[in-house]
Amino acid sequence: MLSVAKAEAARSAAEGGIPIGAALFTRDGVLLGSGHNRRVQDDDASMHGETSAFRNAGRQRSYRDTVMVTTLSPCWYCSGLIRQFGIGRVVVGDDVNFLGGQHWAQEHGAELTVVNDAGLIQMMGAFIAESSELWNEDIGAV
Amino acid sequence: MLSVAKAEAARSAAEGGIPIGAALFTRDGVLLGSGHNRRVQDDDASMHGETSAFRNAGRQRSYRDTVMVTTLSPCWYCSGLIRQFGIGRVVVGDDVNFLGGQHWAQEHGAELTVVNDAGLIQMMGAFIAESSELWNEDIGAV
Repeated sequence: MLSVAKAEAARSAAEGGIPIGAALFTRDGVLLGSGHNRRVQDDDASMHGETSAFRNAGRQRSYRDTVMVTTLSPCWYCSGLIRQFGIGRVVVGDDVNFLGGQHWAQEHGAELTVVNDAGLIQMMGAFIAESSELWNEDIGAV
Repeated sequence: MLSVAKAEAARSAAEGGIPIGAALFTRDGVLLGSGHNRRVQDDDASMHGETSAFRNAGRQRSYRDTVMVTTLSPCWYCSGLIRQFGIGRVVVGDDVNFLGGQHWAQEHGAELTVVNDAGLIQMMGAFIAESSELWNEDIGAV
């Protein structure tokens, strides 16, 4: 499932955006929606990878049996999304370059799987090093 | 400042949507953006009142000197937004009908003001009573 999120991150990078992607699946692996960070592309501060995937999945009655797959550890905003909607499982591609609220989401009921994919860690590390101002803007670090 | 958020809630109600509105201001009272819940209008589960106002405020470098005014206590998703971006102050119109993560956001640095406006409490209470299924969908309650 991580490959869909990785492809979204690559798409965002190709668009000149922040290379973070995510995808929401059913537990059975059916893709409900995927998306990527849209801060640069749309000047939209509200669309992180996870919120974009959540939006693109459309209205769902329950998220208990869904899986949020994200290339980077979900920030507090996206971890709050996971908690509020009771998303059942979270798969994180990289929590080396950034650690958000994934353990808090886990305490509140989400299963957590951390992959730490070498390619993602390298890619995101390079992005943060090269674009630190944009990166800090995206996570509200001042 | 609550009047702008109340007008957004009324606009959403007039559109047949969930009557929750919000507005982001500077501490000096300059309006940066306002918005309302868009679940019904756009089939967009990601646009709560607060995230809509945040989006409409555009990209900001820092949120420390901003005030999020919302007609209803921010859910965990919107409280995560407040925490992640370090929004300096939160004004809540009604925490009687719903209590989200406002105290957690406060613990993490946001000043909190609860108004408990009688008109908002009556309006939101009536909405929840009449549209409980839609309301539960909006907060991920199953």
